[in-house]
Amino acid sequence: MYLSQLFIPVTKDLPAEAKIKSHQLMLRTGMIKQSSAGIYSWLPLGFKVMKKIEQIVREEQNAIDAQEMLMPTIQSSEIWKESGRYDDYGEEMLRIKDRQGREMLYGPTNEELITDVFRSSIKSYKSLPQILYHIQWKFRDEIRPRFGVMRCKEFYMKDAYSFDLTENEAKKSYNKMFFSYLKTFERLGLKAIPMAADTGPIGGDLSHEFIILAETGESQIYADKRIFQLDLSKYESTESSLSQMRKDFSNFYSATDEKFDETKFNESVEKNNQIRTKGIEVGHIFYFGDKYSKPMNCLIDDKSGKKISVKMGSYGIGVSRLVGAAIEANYNNDVMQWPKSISPFDVVIIPSINKNNKDNLQKAEKIYQELKKQNIDVLLDDVDENMSNKFKKHDLIGIPFQIIVGSKSEENKFEFKELNSKSELLSLENIKSKLKE
Amino acid sequence: MYLSQLFIPVTKDLPAEAKIKSHQLMLRTGMIKQSSAGIYSWLPLGFKVMKKIEQIVREEQNAIDAQEMLMPTIQSSEIWKESGRYDDYGEEMLRIKDRQGREMLYGPTNEELITDVFRSSIKSYKSLPQILYHIQWKFRDEIRPRFGVMRCKEFYMKDAYSFDLTENEAKKSYNKMFFSYLKTFERLGLKAIPMAADTGPIGGDLSHEFIILAETGESQIYADKRIFQLDLSKYESTESSLSQMRKDFSNFYSATDEKFDETKFNESVEKNNQIRTKGIEVGHIFYFGDKYSKPMNCLIDDKSGKKISVKMGSYGIGVSRLVGAAIEANYNNDVMQWPKSISPFDVVIIPSINKNNKDNLQKAEKIYQELKKQNIDVLLDDVDENMSNKFKKHDLIGIPFQIIVGSKSEENKFEFKELNSKSELLSLENIKSKLKE
Repeated sequence: MYLSQLFIPVTKDLPAEAKIKSHQLMLRTGMIKQSSAGIYSWLPLGFKVMKKIEQIVREEQNAIDAQEMLMPTIQSSEIWKESGRYDDYGEEMLRIKDRQGREMLYGPTNEELITDVFRSSIKSYKSLPQILYHIQWKFRDEIRPRFGVMRCKEFYMKDAYSFDLTENEAKKSYNKMFFSYLKTFERLGLKAIPMAADTGPIGGDLSHEFIILAETGESQIYADKRIFQLDLSKYESTESSLSQMRKDFSNFYSATDEKFDETKFNESVEKNNQIRTKGIEVGHIFYFGDKYSKPMNCLIDDKSGKKISVKMGSYGIGVSRLVGAAIEANYNNDVMQWPKSISPFDVVIIPSINKNNKDNLQKAEKIYQELKKQNIDVLLDDVDENMSNKFKKHDLIGIPFQIIVGSKSEENKFEFKELNSKSELLSLENIKSKLKE
Repeated sequence: MYLSQLFIPVTKDLPAEAKIKSHQLMLRTGMIKQSSAGIYSWLPLGFKVMKKIEQIVREEQNAIDAQEMLMPTIQSSEIWKESGRYDDYGEEMLRIKDRQGREMLYGPTNEELITDVFRSSIKSYKSLPQILYHIQWKFRDEIRPRFGVMRCKEFYMKDAYSFDLTENEAKKSYNKMFFSYLKTFERLGLKAIPMAADTGPIGGDLSHEFIILAETGESQIYADKRIFQLDLSKYESTESSLSQMRKDFSNFYSATDEKFDETKFNESVEKNNQIRTKGIEVGHIFYFGDKYSKPMNCLIDDKSGKKISVKMGSYGIGVSRLVGAAIEANYNNDVMQWPKSISPFDVVIIPSINKNNKDNLQKAEKIYQELKKQNIDVLLDDVDENMSNKFKKHDLIGIPFQIIVGSKSEENKFEFKELNSKSELLSLENIKSKLKE
């Protein structure tokens, strides 16, 4: 893509309400545009990042045999009355009357709807276990939406639901998802810590939040830094290995302020291993047994023919929120550096453009064509602007690799630079292989 | 995927309201489940088909340099008051009050919102032309939703918007999109005819519908069948070629009953070239100039510095509706045959399973592994059921190719069958190359 053609409207005057750096950066680089309070359009740059995150989330769900489907955004109130949450949910639920006066709502979460799908479909233990998921827009009518996409009203989320015959089987599904989440965040280039959590309005008796470290985060967190030394690649998707993984992670202290206990923290973690920082919740998983299946009469025949309530868990990842979280974690000292797996482009070519001399632009166009042929997603900055402005701009856009075609480039060698590192003069062949690593 | 693990709940008792064959088939093969009147969940089989359609639509939009973004589902009423459509739109618009009493709505279309995005972003003719698109859920509060996903309330749609400086430039964008639509439908394996159309509530003075032939369609259509002999591959994406394409298509009579003229039809089309059948609208494109940009004050500086209202068009494809339309066009005599490009799986392996002899199942599993390695998306029917039932079931599921492992297969040869054709005995190598064609 040529930058001059990319729809990337930059906001020069930051609105006063953009208080955190992800919100500011997303406006400054034209990733999003607010359409009304807490509701955003995703412009091409932001959209590309969100889609890359979505695809990684999807692949890691598929890897544990979760099946993708899609539930609608608008739900009937009836199933929420069955579960008992319609009155409980409060004003954050966007309630709607359709033209015939029926009570509908914009789904803030989908436990009821998936239970309704499941109870009419699966009747026998033979069809279990099942994990179903979807990636869909949700709505929470926040009274004070803020922090851009981090706490907005309309947000994009992956939510999965597991169905098992027994609590013991359900815990296996829970562990599989736990593992899948850690792998997902690792692929996204983010350090996430699982923390035992309260279950809140979802309910149940077992729950973990996944928190990304970021100094601007909303939650205070306390952890043993050795938790980051655990190597995910040593676990396999077997029952015993995943059970070991859960044990290994729970060996290291980690808590949000909700559950923090100063004495226990100091007793169990040496001073120099203690992390006290802030974090952002990007995932939350729950086991809640028959909390929904029982009132909603979602029954399964067990081996003896007895009808029992299916045991369920639910598992969320905030896909749109992760875009903001990735910025909070990777934007420092006026330089944003996207993790390679979710960068909007793989590399940007920055030619020094001179009105009387188009040599650099022509060289840049040649490189562009070469890289395109290799399926490298490349941005060419063909805007007529001085180099110092260009560099400042690309420090914000955050594409991790740059090819600079200017005074330092030689006949067949170009400056190649990873953000936050020094540049080196490399041939195009060498650049290609670096990018393909 | 193993069929026994696929979440594919079959509905045995068809609801009385399932009157057309796509609605019936989608329920019978567990592609969708109704959650409330006119609102559906997409189960894994239906979801896969819809995603394949979405991806083809996306690729053909990208091919004409349209840029993908995403607008939210919930919009403020304010922009609709600016354009004047808030009162006009009637009860099909799902109107919502948020917790603070603000008037919101679930977008039935996005002309207002995209104009709002555009006017705050682009100020100069230098940034034109632009085409932006998104693929997003829309809502129309139909008084009588029917025909399954063909006329439902919550539906998935690609809508694109073009922005040009002059009417002449805008017509070029229109022609590019016209071309892109024809290529899209061709890749989807569907025969679509463009027809001059009325502009309805979108407005404007130039409009085409794209109609798929299907005897169960909702619109009566009249066309010259030679329109199908036009070869898309002979046109290029240049102004003159696309202008020629428009001329060539308009040389052949085609009209819905809305615009039909019996005398003109008989005068311009020989009897044996006349098609009188029904059709389904799957796309609609509009040029409407400054209908939105003028009242919404979306101004662009032209070369002389004069501010003029940008010239716009909008272009829709019903992605969820296309799933139903593809069934209407390809489901005959109790056999569904998905076009290869949008089939939920590339091929199904059907072993004859005998309780005392697992040989066929084991052979089938070997073939399954081999095909997976080649990135062929394969379904293995491991359900313990007699072959006659299996064949009936797969006639409905509609995967175009079958590998049958049963009495006719030899040591290294298996029955390979394209639906609606005769089977042949082929080696696995030959089967692989057939599937890769």
